[in-house]
Amino acid sequence: MRYEESVIEGRNAVMEAFRSGKTIDRLFILDGCQDGPVKSILREAKKTDCILNFVKKERLDQISETGKHQGVIAYAAAYNYASVDDILKAAEDKGEAPFIIILDGIEDPHNLGAMIRTADQVGAHGIIIPKRRAVGLTATVAKSSAGAINYVPVAKVTNICQTIEELKKKSNMWFAAADMSGGPMQNCNLTGPIGLVIGSEGDGVSRLVKETCDFTVSIPMKGNIDSLNASVAMAVISYEIFRQRNYL
Amino acid sequence: MRYEESVIEGRNAVMEAFRSGKTIDRLFILDGCQDGPVKSILREAKKTDCILNFVKKERLDQISETGKHQGVIAYAAAYNYASVDDILKAAEDKGEAPFIIILDGIEDPHNLGAMIRTADQVGAHGIIIPKRRAVGLTATVAKSSAGAINYVPVAKVTNICQTIEELKKKSNMWFAAADMSGGPMQNCNLTGPIGLVIGSEGDGVSRLVKETCDFTVSIPMKGNIDSLNASVAMAVISYEIFRQRNYL
Repeated sequence: MRYEESVIEGRNAVMEAFRSGKTIDRLFILDGCQDGPVKSILREAKKTDCILNFVKKERLDQISETGKHQGVIAYAAAYNYASVDDILKAAEDKGEAPFIIILDGIEDPHNLGAMIRTADQVGAHGIIIPKRRAVGLTATVAKSSAGAINYVPVAKVTNICQTIEELKKKSNMWFAAADMSGGPMQNCNLTGPIGLVIGSEGDGVSRLVKETCDFTVSIPMKGNIDSLNASVAMAVISYEIFRQRNYL
Repeated sequence: MRYEESVIEGRNAVMEAFRSGKTIDRLFILDGCQDGPVKSILREAKKTDCILNFVKKERLDQISETGKHQGVIAYAAAYNYASVDDILKAAEDKGEAPFIIILDGIEDPHNLGAMIRTADQVGAHGIIIPKRRAVGLTATVAKSSAGAINYVPVAKVTNICQTIEELKKKSNMWFAAADMSGGPMQNCNLTGPIGLVIGSEGDGVSRLVKETCDFTVSIPMKGNIDSLNASVAMAVISYEIFRQRNYL
């Protein structure tokens, strides 16, 4: 995996990016644009799982860093994504029960970077993020992870609920959703094959995902406000899992 | 305490800020400027403990948001600072042994905000930060703290080592410096009156401060990189203190 530019602008550059097999997270195309090169790019894009956005010229001008977008701008991932199977294999290779972090819609790249860093330290085998409404592996995420992005596989999936259901069947994993209504973490059994689900900065774990999980887990709090920074919450519960797995 | 603008520009505005008793963290003055109003501002500034920076015009132009700085720009604190005694009193009022977080040079406002938020949840009685080479209570810090800044007193001191020495005498506190070379946190006794010292993002706890502490404490890590985000490290050790104090 190597560090790469994340914004690609202009028809030739974007087409080249698709052809070279670069992972494109998101493609912005001028709405209504029908000419040949743009149609070709669209065809390439549809072969991948990148998100398509048809936008007005003003929006493209706003996103553009060079001012020469020619109607197409692509956001490339700074790092390659892993698959969910890669993550399970990482656990298997170490002879450990899987420990996977699932992030249900983290939008702040610094938070995602810090979480990748923490995942490395607590011995999580990988991270799963959703394709939509969440930050991907951008250059800022890579930087915030302080290099941990090179060691922690991150998989991007279309549907978090479906992935959880599949993992339950395939690996007998239990899933804990971080939620204020849950049982205090120190009273929960967090050993064995486990998936920890952390919600978005603003809204927490979404209702459907929470219902798909086996139980909810909360952090004891004695403060006046009712939540923690998302990357802090992830770290505190992850270290409780680490504690129960290693030196309880 | 109320939310306020943090950058004040122009002679009248800055003079007014000092006269009204607003807390100014830092004052930038055009180097060599000798005229009356600027001298008056300098006189007021010297009565407070704000940091003075004599800079070139180019630097002022760069910092300026309005372009009309007239040779003076002040950074005001968005919130008022507490004193170390306020923090000790907060512990006394609750009938608890003091639990204080000391931040030795945190520079990122988002980290400081997240730490204030965590301090509230773990029941720390206050935070101590140094006057120099660290971020103060700016508007960004206030926002990142998600409101916790209203509940956690933050004191600003000139010399961290001296403050630690005074607290040792005054309150029989023990001081633990977070450091990779320290004993694993779960093996340390972190109950009783305690101060937890967290170092800066880049360099950790400085040598002198570390030597002033009673012991060092580390977070167990099984990763490939050798550190955590500063606000994450603070949270993980703080929750170990919380655990030992409340439900071990």
